[in-house]
Amino acid sequence: MQDLQPLLCPRSIAIIGASTQPDKVGGVPIRLLRELGYEGRVFPVNPSTDTVQGLRAYPTIESIGEPVDLAIVAVPAPAAPDVMMQLGRAGTRAAVVFTSGFAEVSGGEALQHALAEQARAHGVQLLGPNCLGAMNLRERMYATFSPMPFTGVPPVGEVGLVSQSGAFGAYAFALAREAGLGLSHWVTTGNEAGLQVADVIEWLAHDPQTRVILAYIEGARDGMRLRQALAAARAAGKPVVVAKVGTTAAGASAAQSHTASLAGEDAVYQAVFDEYGVHRAHTLEAFFRLGYTLARGRRPAQWQSPTGMPADAVAPVAIVTVSGGVGIMMADSAESLGLPLPPMPQAAAQALRAAIPFASTANPIDVTGQVVSQPQVFVDALANVARCGEYGSVAAFLAGGVNAPRLWSVLQETVETLAGESAAAPLMISGVMDDEKRAWLEARGCLVFKEPAHTMEAVAALAKAAAMEARASEANDTRETILQGPRLPDDATALSEAEAMAWLAEAGVPVAPHGVAHDADAAVRIAESIGFPVAVKICSRHVLHKSDIGGVILNLQNADDVRAAFSRVRDAMARARDASGSPVPFEGALVARMVSGWGEIMVGVRRDPVFGLVALAGIGGTAVEIFRQMAFGLAPLSRQRARSMLLQSRAAALCMGHRGHPAIDLDAVADVLVNVSRVAAAIGERLDTLEINPFIVGTDGLVAADAVITLR
Amino acid sequence: MQDLQPLLCPRSIAIIGASTQPDKVGGVPIRLLRELGYEGRVFPVNPSTDTVQGLRAYPTIESIGEPVDLAIVAVPAPAAPDVMMQLGRAGTRAAVVFTSGFAEVSGGEALQHALAEQARAHGVQLLGPNCLGAMNLRERMYATFSPMPFTGVPPVGEVGLVSQSGAFGAYAFALAREAGLGLSHWVTTGNEAGLQVADVIEWLAHDPQTRVILAYIEGARDGMRLRQALAAARAAGKPVVVAKVGTTAAGASAAQSHTASLAGEDAVYQAVFDEYGVHRAHTLEAFFRLGYTLARGRRPAQWQSPTGMPADAVAPVAIVTVSGGVGIMMADSAESLGLPLPPMPQAAAQALRAAIPFASTANPIDVTGQVVSQPQVFVDALANVARCGEYGSVAAFLAGGVNAPRLWSVLQETVETLAGESAAAPLMISGVMDDEKRAWLEARGCLVFKEPAHTMEAVAALAKAAAMEARASEANDTRETILQGPRLPDDATALSEAEAMAWLAEAGVPVAPHGVAHDADAAVRIAESIGFPVAVKICSRHVLHKSDIGGVILNLQNADDVRAAFSRVRDAMARARDASGSPVPFEGALVARMVSGWGEIMVGVRRDPVFGLVALAGIGGTAVEIFRQMAFGLAPLSRQRARSMLLQSRAAALCMGHRGHPAIDLDAVADVLVNVSRVAAAIGERLDTLEINPFIVGTDGLVAADAVITLR
Repeated sequence: MQDLQPLLCPRSIAIIGASTQPDKVGGVPIRLLRELGYEGRVFPVNPSTDTVQGLRAYPTIESIGEPVDLAIVAVPAPAAPDVMMQLGRAGTRAAVVFTSGFAEVSGGEALQHALAEQARAHGVQLLGPNCLGAMNLRERMYATFSPMPFTGVPPVGEVGLVSQSGAFGAYAFALAREAGLGLSHWVTTGNEAGLQVADVIEWLAHDPQTRVILAYIEGARDGMRLRQALAAARAAGKPVVVAKVGTTAAGASAAQSHTASLAGEDAVYQAVFDEYGVHRAHTLEAFFRLGYTLARGRRPAQWQSPTGMPADAVAPVAIVTVSGGVGIMMADSAESLGLPLPPMPQAAAQALRAAIPFASTANPIDVTGQVVSQPQVFVDALANVARCGEYGSVAAFLAGGVNAPRLWSVLQETVETLAGESAAAPLMISGVMDDEKRAWLEARGCLVFKEPAHTMEAVAALAKAAAMEARASEANDTRETILQGPRLPDDATALSEAEAMAWLAEAGVPVAPHGVAHDADAAVRIAESIGFPVAVKICSRHVLHKSDIGGVILNLQNADDVRAAFSRVRDAMARARDASGSPVPFEGALVARMVSGWGEIMVGVRRDPVFGLVALAGIGGTAVEIFRQMAFGLAPLSRQRARSMLLQSRAAALCMGHRGHPAIDLDAVADVLVNVSRVAAAIGERLDTLEINPFIVGTDGLVAADAVITLR
Repeated sequence: MQDLQPLLCPRSIAIIGASTQPDKVGGVPIRLLRELGYEGRVFPVNPSTDTVQGLRAYPTIESIGEPVDLAIVAVPAPAAPDVMMQLGRAGTRAAVVFTSGFAEVSGGEALQHALAEQARAHGVQLLGPNCLGAMNLRERMYATFSPMPFTGVPPVGEVGLVSQSGAFGAYAFALAREAGLGLSHWVTTGNEAGLQVADVIEWLAHDPQTRVILAYIEGARDGMRLRQALAAARAAGKPVVVAKVGTTAAGASAAQSHTASLAGEDAVYQAVFDEYGVHRAHTLEAFFRLGYTLARGRRPAQWQSPTGMPADAVAPVAIVTVSGGVGIMMADSAESLGLPLPPMPQAAAQALRAAIPFASTANPIDVTGQVVSQPQVFVDALANVARCGEYGSVAAFLAGGVNAPRLWSVLQETVETLAGESAAAPLMISGVMDDEKRAWLEARGCLVFKEPAHTMEAVAALAKAAAMEARASEANDTRETILQGPRLPDDATALSEAEAMAWLAEAGVPVAPHGVAHDADAAVRIAESIGFPVAVKICSRHVLHKSDIGGVILNLQNADDVRAAFSRVRDAMARARDASGSPVPFEGALVARMVSGWGEIMVGVRRDPVFGLVALAGIGGTAVEIFRQMAFGLAPLSRQRARSMLLQSRAAALCMGHRGHPAIDLDAVADVLVNVSRVAAAIGERLDTLEINPFIVGTDGLVAADAVITLR
C-alpha cells in the first residue's frame, strides 16, 4: 500500500511556481492555506521575488534548507520533469502536479513519461499531472488551485472523496458543501502518472478518519490494484460508492467464442463491484445520496428472522405512512429492491385499529389523514414497529406533517426516546420540512429525504453495507485451486475436447460419459459401453468450430450409425486445415453419450485485459443472442456469487421446477459453476477462454455436453 | 364529457355543515375563500347560528333562495344522502363531499351507494366522498379543508393536477409550492362515487388554461373512460404525466392460456399509457420534474434530419460540458434514452479547437476547465451548436460555472440572444446556482436542473411530447375491423383450430397449409396435396390442450405414418371428455404442414377486465416462462405499436439476421400482428382469448403453426 501521509497530512508544503497573485494557479493554494488555517509550514518557491503573499520566498527547493513533505508544482509542463528531479534531491516526499499539457494532449505522452520516471527514480510520490489537487479537511490542508474553498467548505466528516476528474471533483465539492455532507479528504488524480484512484481508496480504507469512500472513476488501467483497494475497503468494513462512467465496450480482440465476445466492459466492472460489495451510483444525485446514507445511517436492527430463512436474508422493513397512495409507491419500490414487507405484529395492529378503525395495519401501515387530529396514534405506531423486533428498519412518510406543531412535538418525544434504545430499528423519514427540523432529526440518527422512494433505497443500501460489514471479519473463503488436469501443450492454442473434459472432470464438474476412438471398432465399443444414443465428434486441439466443418454428428442410435459417423468425421478431419493452412493430423474422434434434459445453460470464463479471469453464466441456445442476459463474476467464484449469477441471469428458473420438471438443487448447480471457475484458475496464466455450451439441465443436475478451452 | 364548470369555476358556493371555527373541516373552506380572495358568493349553511365567520348563515340550502353552483358538504356521513337530495331540489349543480365513512370503511358501501344514487337522481355532479376537495388557483377558489393554502399557494400556471388520493394531492400541492410550479387546477377525487380521475383529465384536456396534466391514480374502475380521457388529451396536444402505483397482479380468473396469465395488471396499464403517449413517473420527484419540464420546456428545434432516417426519428442532442467525466455520464444517460449524439459540425469544431486545442469536439463537447479563463469560448460553442441546425436540443453542464462573474455575464448575453431566435435549439442547463440566476435562465426558456442526467430525461420527455403534439392533428388511423370468419358457435367456449385458422386467414395472417380429415384416406390426400412433413392433430371446439391427451402427432413423413397418426388421434378423442365430463364427438383431425424456421414468436390477445382487448407478443418457447419479456398493446394495434412491441420484447431480433439467417421485413411482421389483433377486434364482445403459439419465424416471414380462440 502506498503511504499517503506526506501527501494528505503534510507537516510542510512548498509551492514550486508560487505566484504573488492569489488568483493564479500558483497563487491560489498559498492564499487557501493561509486564510483557511493550515497549521503546517508553507514555503513559496519563486526565484524572481523575495516575498510571495507576505511569506518569504525561496529561489529553489534546495534553498529551503530542509526536506518538505509535500510540493505543489505549478510550473510549465516542459520544466516539470526537471523540477521533479530537484524535489527528489531535496528529499521531498510527495508532489501534486497541477500543470496540464501531458498525456491528455496529443504528443504529451513522452513528457508525462519523463515526469513519472523522475518521480520514481527520486522516490517522490506523484499525484497528477493535470489534476486539481488534494485536500484534508480536518487539517485544513488545501493543495488545490480551485478557488471554491474561499466561498465555503463542507463540514469535516467521515466521507473520503476521490475523483479521477478534476471538474467532477470540484462539482462534488460544491454539492457536498450545499448538502452539508461531511468530508474527511478530497483527492483528484488527473492523468494518474503516479497515484491512481485505487491507491487513494486503499489508503482511505485504512484511514481512521474515513468511514465511507466515494470514488469517481472513468477506467482503471490497473484492475488488480483496484481489486486490491476494494478488498481492503471491504476488509475494513467501509462502504465504497462508485460512479463509473462510460459504457462503451472495450476494444476486445476478435472473439473466438461467445465467452470472449459477450462480456462488455461495463458488465465486468459490475462483476468487480458485486464481488466487493461496492455501491454503484449512476447519477450525481445518487452518488451523494448514497454517501449521506452510508455515512449517517444506522444499520438495520437485529430482527426475529423466522426459521427457515437463509442466513443472508434481507431485514424486513416497516412502511408507516399518512398517505395510502404514497405507501403503495414505497411498497412498489421496496418490492423492486427485494425488501420484505411483513405485516404489523398483532398487538401493535390492534392498538392502531382501536384508535383509527379504518387505518391499514398491513404493511404499508397507513395511519391515514387522521394523523392530523390523532398525532399520538401515529408516533405510537412508529414506536411500536421500531421496537417490536420484526423489522430491521422503519420508513415513514410524513408529507408536510412535521409542520403541524402537535405532530412535531410528539414526534420529537418519540424520536428522542427511540434514539436512546440501541435495539430499536432506525427511522428513515420522508416529507417536506425546514432545515432546522431536518437537522434535529438527523442529529438523533434519523435519515431524512424529500422523495419517499429514497427512504427505500437507503434501507437497501444500509442492509447491503451491514451484510458487507458483517462478512468483513470472516475469513476469506476462496480456496487455493490445485488441480491436475492433462498437461498443457506448449505448441497449441487450445485443448482438445477430451482434454478439456478431463480438466473439468478433475474439478468435479459432471461431463457427458465419453471416450476417444481411433478407429470405427473402438467407436462402437465405446458407444456400447456408455450407452446409446451417442454423438461422434472431431477431437482435436486444432479445430475449434467442429460443427462448421461437419465434424459433429448427433443422435446416433446404433452401432452401424456410429461406424458411418466415425468415417464421416475422419473425412471431415482430412479436409480440415489449421490456422496456418496446414492439414491437421487425425487424433481420434470423441464418442459421447447424448445427454437429455429440459434446458441449456452456458458457462464460461474469459480473460479480461483489466481484471483477469471473469466467469459468466446464463441461459444457452437462442437466448444467448436474443436476451443477452448473462451474469458475470470474478473467477474463482464463491458459491454465493455463483448462486446470484444463476438468479440474475434467470438460469436458475430452469432449475426450479421449470414447466413441471423436477426441481434441482440450486446450491449443487452453483457448485458446478464454482468448479468450472476453479479449472480456469488452475490453468491460470495460460488460460485464454473456457466455455461449456451447453450444460444440459436435467434430472441429474448439470452435465457438460461440450467444452472448449483455449490457451495463450 | 362531464362539464366541470360548476365544480371548478363556480359563481357561488354553499357550505353545508359550515363551522364557526375556522380550523374545523366545515370552517376551513370559508376562511380560505374569504382570505385568499375568491370573488364569487359564499353561503354558509348552518341551522344553529345566524352568522358564520362574519357571513350570514342560512338554516337550509333552500333558504338561500337561489340555486348555487357548488355545495361543499361537511356533514356526518349518515346525513349526506339526504343533504344530496336537498341540494338537488334546490338546483345545486355540483357538490364536493369531504365526509369520510363511506366505501373506505367496511359496511360503508351501502351509504356510498345511497349518496351516489341521490346525486344522480337529482342531477348533482358529485366529487368524493372522502376527498380533500378541489381548487382553481386562477379564480382563488379553494373548496378544500386542507389548511395548506393558508401558508402559501403555488403560482397560477398551466399545470392541472388531479389525484385520487387526498394525502398525495396535499403533498403534491406542498411540493409544487416549494418548486414554484405553476398550477391551474387541483382536484382530489377520493372514493369516486361520482367523478373519476378520468373525468377531470378529460375536462382539463379541453380547458384553455391547462397545458400539462398531472394525474395520480391507484386504479381505474372504468378503463374505457380513462382511455377516452387520455385520447382527448392527446387530441388536444396536452402531455399527461401519470403516477400509477401498485404493481400487484389483478385477481385474474384461472388462466386458460398463456395469453391470459402473462398480462399482469401493470403491463396492461403501461400498454394504455404507451398507446396515448402518457409520461409515466415512478417517483414523486420525477412526477414533478416531468410537470416542470413539459410545462416550461421548449420543444426540440427542427433539425436537418439526414436522408433515410425514419419520420419518427428522435432529434439529436448536443452535450456541452465543462467536465469530461460528467459529459460521459450524460452520454450514458442519452444512450439509454435512445437520444442520438452526432458530433459537432466541422466549422464549430474548428473554432472551438482553435481556441482550446485539447477541447473535445466529439459529442459530448468538452470545453474543459478552460471555461474559467476562456468563458467566451464556451458560450460561443453553445451558440454554435444551438444554431447549426444539426441538433434538436442542447444540454449544457456548467458545474459551479455560473457563479464566476465573467462566465455568468457572457452566458447571459448568449442566452438573451438565443431566446430571440425561434430556430435555435432550446437549452437545458445543469449546475449549481442560486434561485435568482435560475429564475433568470428559466424566464428565457432554459430549463435548469441540478442533476446532469435530468437534462437528458428532459430532452427525451420533450421529444416525446413534440411527437405526440405533432400527431395530435393527424386523423386517427385505426380502421374499423370488418371480417367475416366462420360463424361463432352459441354453445361452445372455443373455436376449433380449423375455425381459428380460418378467421386468421380471412384477416390475411399466414397460417400453415392444412385441411380437416374425417377419415384416414382423407388425411393422406390432404397430406399429399400440402406436402410432407405434416402434423395430425385433434380438431375440436371442446379440447383446448390437445397434446395433453395425445392429440398432436408431429413430423409425419409419409402416407403410412399419417394413416397411423390419424387412428391414434381418433382413439385419443374417443377417450376425451369435455368440461362437464361427457364424451366429445369426433369432428375430424387437422392435417397441417410442418412449418420450419429458426425461431418462434408467441402472439396473443386477451380481454382485460378494465381496458378491454389487449394484445401481447414476445419470443415463444422456453423464453416465455424464463424471461417473461412480453410486450403489450391495445387491440386493434397500429403498425407502429406492433413494431415497438416486436422491438421491446426482443422478438424483432429473430427477424434481423439472427444467427446468419436472412433478415425479414419487420414492417411485414408488424402487419401480421396488426392483423391478428384485427381478428380479435372483429370477434369483438364474444372474444375471451386468442393465442398463436408458435408463430414460426422463417424465410417466408411469420407462419401460424397453432391457434387457439376461446369465447365467452
